[in-house]
Amino acid sequence: MLSFVNDYSEGAHPAVLQRLIDTNMEQLPGYGRDRYCSSAARKIAEACSCPQAQVFFMAGGTQTNQTIVSCILKPWQGLVAADTGHVNVHEAGAIEAVDHKVLTVEGDRGKIRPDTLDSYLEGFYADGNHEQMVFPGMVYISHPTEYGTLYTRQELEQLSDICHRYEIPLYLDGARLGYGLVAPGTDVDLDDIAALCDIFYIGGTKVGALCGEAVVFPKGDAPEHMSTMIKRRGALLAKGRLLGIQFDALFTDDLYKRISRNAIDTATMIKEALRERGYQIYMDSPTNQTFVRLDNRKMEELAEHVAFDFWERSDADHTIIRFATSWATSIEDTKALIDLL
Amino acid sequence: MLSFVNDYSEGAHPAVLQRLIDTNMEQLPGYGRDRYCSSAARKIAEACSCPQAQVFFMAGGTQTNQTIVSCILKPWQGLVAADTGHVNVHEAGAIEAVDHKVLTVEGDRGKIRPDTLDSYLEGFYADGNHEQMVFPGMVYISHPTEYGTLYTRQELEQLSDICHRYEIPLYLDGARLGYGLVAPGTDVDLDDIAALCDIFYIGGTKVGALCGEAVVFPKGDAPEHMSTMIKRRGALLAKGRLLGIQFDALFTDDLYKRISRNAIDTATMIKEALRERGYQIYMDSPTNQTFVRLDNRKMEELAEHVAFDFWERSDADHTIIRFATSWATSIEDTKALIDLL
Amino acid sequence: MLSFVNDYSEGAHPAVLQRLIDTNMEQLPGYGRDRYCSSAARKIAEACSCPQAQVFFMAGGTQTNQTIVSCILKPWQGLVAADTGHVNVHEAGAIEAVDHKVLTVEGDRGKIRPDTLDSYLEGFYADGNHEQMVFPGMVYISHPTEYGTLYTRQELEQLSDICHRYEIPLYLDGARLGYGLVAPGTDVDLDDIAALCDIFYIGGTKVGALCGEAVVFPKGDAPEHMSTMIKRRGALLAKGRLLGIQFDALFTDDLYKRISRNAIDTATMIKEALRERGYQIYMDSPTNQTFVRLDNRKMEELAEHVAFDFWERSDADHTIIRFATSWATSIEDTKALIDLL
Amino acid sequence: MLSFVNDYSEGAHPAVLQRLIDTNMEQLPGYGRDRYCSSAARKIAEACSCPQAQVFFMAGGTQTNQTIVSCILKPWQGLVAADTGHVNVHEAGAIEAVDHKVLTVEGDRGKIRPDTLDSYLEGFYADGNHEQMVFPGMVYISHPTEYGTLYTRQELEQLSDICHRYEIPLYLDGARLGYGLVAPGTDVDLDDIAALCDIFYIGGTKVGALCGEAVVFPKGDAPEHMSTMIKRRGALLAKGRLLGIQFDALFTDDLYKRISRNAIDTATMIKEALRERGYQIYMDSPTNQTFVRLDNRKMEELAEHVAFDFWERSDADHTIIRFATSWATSIEDTKALIDLL
Repeated sequence: MLSFVNDYSEGAHPAVLQRLIDTNMEQLPGYGRDRYCSSAARKIAEACSCPQAQVFFMAGGTQTNQTIVSCILKPWQGLVAADTGHVNVHEAGAIEAVDHKVLTVEGDRGKIRPDTLDSYLEGFYADGNHEQMVFPGMVYISHPTEYGTLYTRQELEQLSDICHRYEIPLYLDGARLGYGLVAPGTDVDLDDIAALCDIFYIGGTKVGALCGEAVVFPKGDAPEHMSTMIKRRGALLAKGRLLGIQFDALFTDDLYKRISRNAIDTATMIKEALRERGYQIYMDSPTNQTFVRLDNRKMEELAEHVAFDFWERSDADHTIIRFATSWATSIEDTKALIDLL
Repeated sequence: MLSFVNDYSEGAHPAVLQRLIDTNMEQLPGYGRDRYCSSAARKIAEACSCPQAQVFFMAGGTQTNQTIVSCILKPWQGLVAADTGHVNVHEAGAIEAVDHKVLTVEGDRGKIRPDTLDSYLEGFYADGNHEQMVFPGMVYISHPTEYGTLYTRQELEQLSDICHRYEIPLYLDGARLGYGLVAPGTDVDLDDIAALCDIFYIGGTKVGALCGEAVVFPKGDAPEHMSTMIKRRGALLAKGRLLGIQFDALFTDDLYKRISRNAIDTATMIKEALRERGYQIYMDSPTNQTFVRLDNRKMEELAEHVAFDFWERSDADHTIIRFATSWATSIEDTKALIDLL
Repeated sequence: MLSFVNDYSEGAHPAVLQRLIDTNMEQLPGYGRDRYCSSAARKIAEACSCPQAQVFFMAGGTQTNQTIVSCILKPWQGLVAADTGHVNVHEAGAIEAVDHKVLTVEGDRGKIRPDTLDSYLEGFYADGNHEQMVFPGMVYISHPTEYGTLYTRQELEQLSDICHRYEIPLYLDGARLGYGLVAPGTDVDLDDIAALCDIFYIGGTKVGALCGEAVVFPKGDAPEHMSTMIKRRGALLAKGRLLGIQFDALFTDDLYKRISRNAIDTATMIKEALRERGYQIYMDSPTNQTFVRLDNRKMEELAEHVAFDFWERSDADHTIIRFATSWATSIEDTKALIDLL
Repeated sequence: MLSFVNDYSEGAHPAVLQRLIDTNMEQLPGYGRDRYCSSAARKIAEACSCPQAQVFFMAGGTQTNQTIVSCILKPWQGLVAADTGHVNVHEAGAIEAVDHKVLTVEGDRGKIRPDTLDSYLEGFYADGNHEQMVFPGMVYISHPTEYGTLYTRQELEQLSDICHRYEIPLYLDGARLGYGLVAPGTDVDLDDIAALCDIFYIGGTKVGALCGEAVVFPKGDAPEHMSTMIKRRGALLAKGRLLGIQFDALFTDDLYKRISRNAIDTATMIKEALRERGYQIYMDSPTNQTFVRLDNRKMEELAEHVAFDFWERSDADHTIIRFATSWATSIEDTKALIDLL
């Protein structure tokens, strides 16, 4: 059975695993104070062209979003996100569990349009009653978004400008960042993100690691006592090395981007095959997720041979499904999928 | 200067104040264990035709909503509300401050339409991924709504049916309940609410009391240790008598409804005058709030002589404003306002 | 039946009640923006000799403690209190409900000894592992304490010095402050407290008001958006006037202290009578609470004629009970109690 | 440089790592729904002699304690722990961060004595005022404790009896459980723990895994929607396989206990050597931690050649230090340490 069900089906990229094997019996300090965490942080800072950057490692995306929100927002503030944002929909209330409201604005295929954000913020402060409302305290975007779409550099610049005009930080969730950085047509690289966002995380779980996300404060202005606050959220691994070693490997010799390209190449093969065969691409997205609208009968046929993600019902006879590729997707499997289409 | 700015501008209704005066030097037990709290609870239960009802008193509406939510919802649940609901917009994140998400559905002039609720709940459980989402755990409605509109009995029956089909309680915020109960054309009385809602509160602050809301569990199924949970939210007054005595007065000889009628009578005078003079009523509502769309020049003229609530900008030249009446609004003031229009 | 069971058995002091009556039909803005709140704040600031002081009103003590803690502490900090402190024992977890730990130090008859605090803070920072511990973020003391004892000015100076050396605020819970200010032998007046504490509250509920506590930031350095944070905790009354008017009355013509003296005078009569009759005073305290150790038979006899508070079992045959007096305690009742002893 | 600083200095036990290597490219479902999680759960249930047991995997100990507390305690309840308990001292307030108080009882070398617990619970319910206090809702013990000590079976039976008499669950933190199970003289095995505790976790991070703890509900009575609640705490790994595979390896062919013995053997060598040489063992404990009181000069000499944990200052001239061993400690290193002593 072929599987295109998600981008976290395998373990670690072999090169990452090898580093875990090679270092396994080294005795290292705990709680992220080991030399691999330092080295990984340094390499990430370099990749961001931000020597002053501070980097923290956590195990998963929801944990990261929750911890960052709880460290950054003031008690009277909420997190501005697209209505479709992961923090709003698929984190089981993790943001509210740390006492903060998700303030939603209408998303455009997963993205927050700069003009939408601007209107929202202007409207908030124009409302004379806003002292009894939740203040916008940080803006959350994902890149790629939950729909695989990407911001342009100009859009990020505009969002960044708006945030800074209102003196609130811009936070980017990069759970699938690698796939965004190497997508065809993107003009956004890691140093752009570091220059335009106040906080962001580089996803490891979906891009070559067993687990792990690297939170970056590109300006080196992380709140004080971060490690205590990470501990308090249950997010500080005793063996922080597990995260440091993996990110050290991922940011050695550009491995992070190199392995990401496979996901794009295979996704592009799938998208082209779908277009050639006249399938209806549901949402045009340049990264590793492909959304397609299928006749239900066809979907059921496919489901006998390949695992994919049910996305949503389209109408009585049609369904939107998703094929996800990753660093681990083989050309053979991709061709086999195409043959089935 | 006339004031129609809100419905909590004065102190207590004179009859309520008189009871506070009469009982002032009585020595009574603390924390709601006094005989006036008991008597008020009994009278409210009678007014609801629910002898088994349990009643708790708290000082204000946001506190009440927050405390009830924290007592009723399970950790994995959120509160379903109209996007315009007070809990979603104007409580400064009090629901999130007790760890719960407000799950919004599109409101219809402040109300949740039964079909909207039904679709939302059906859609939630149809989503295969809902295990990582916030589960709907209680439905919040206000009656009158924030826009002064009212549910019909049939609508409440439908909402109640839907909630019970999904085994979640229906909670009614009655901050202005008195004004709803005596509004022209309503077919919803207190015993209907008690029969159809699982929890509701009867607003005192806006209907004759100095402060205070009475939470009713009509089936007598309040969670255990309610008083500890109320204390834990800072919502248990040492001199619980302050609330008990006021509600005892309000529910003696039907005072609660009797004083509510004045708000309706004066609001009706205003609405009729507006219609006669060709003003554009912004939202038709049968209770004590009147929303009207004014030319900005007219609005500025009016503002020299009367205080009202700015509601929202309509267009460059027009604004929506609100006139609120209450038990305390005098016929003289109402006539003076009408003369100004 | 005589009652000495607590100091919140009656309603408001008649002069306070009269002000509520006199102002009842005045139309005033909501949420503490009325002129009585302003006037009360100004009078309190004067009484503290701190013209720059900021004053906020809340309805009760637990609510006040909870709200202040949630506004002041950073996420990695806890509240240092005596093990017997009200916040640690009798607030149903209200501090933890806003996410903060109560860090206890051993109390000395309700008080924190300066050397105890100093050792605790020194020890905390001496522990190399403290990055994974809860940092002391504010010191909580009560004055009078839960045992009716008082700090001397020197002790307050020492506590204040220690706190400032560690750069954490000193917070004083003055639920019964009036009774402390006029106690025999005290050298601590309101302006001492204002000079030495960073935040404190002046208790109204137990000293003449129907409800209400006045939080004072004597340096005028309240956190930004306090009113939003108060609202978010459900602690912002729509009719803020209820608190403003009462405190305005209490701080007019020194009423607050004048009415407090009655509690001391009557408590002193009781203490003297007990001593004369050879009763064993359990804890020597100069304020309105009197703790006495009684033979159980005697206790049961007394209980037929007078209500008092059971404090704790002493041994199989003896019990500690508490007589509380207040502004409302009459000389007649006091004499009647003494006759029974 | 030798290191005896803690028991989480190395990566995974080689056999555990091998399983990660062998399974690395298998495509598996996410979020703990893979076959290794199922298999590990089944093997753990067997090892506990509890076929009905339910098992959940989380990444670290603080996260596990926090999540379990937030799933089990009711809003009015706190967690009873020894004053020295990890949850009280070294988790940066993670329990309070999920809104619950740690109710401390005096510990006896890390343990809660059954009579201490009994008195505490009896005293709590004897206090007439307990409705405004935090109710004891679960008892937390660690085994081995933070001091390396162990409960006897009789003590666990007594604690279990007391808990069940008061209808609250007994929860055991087994961060170092392996080292306890194979300690000399213990009469407590895994099936005793499963029979006597309501919830417990089997520590992986300190006993052979890269990360991971296995929470066991031996009666199969885990709360509903556990996976949503785990997600909401940021504790649900997308690649749940990382935990499942490791625990599957640890519970295959008794690996968990087999590798634990090395820690005991090496610790025993150290303890014997210390005794022979006349060192003062600070606290007698049969597991992998050895606490010894050293002359500061001696300590400084040692510190040049071996890393150990500073525990606490004993007096001006002496210090308590800790040597920790683990599954990874070599006989050579142990002998080298002994030579230095």
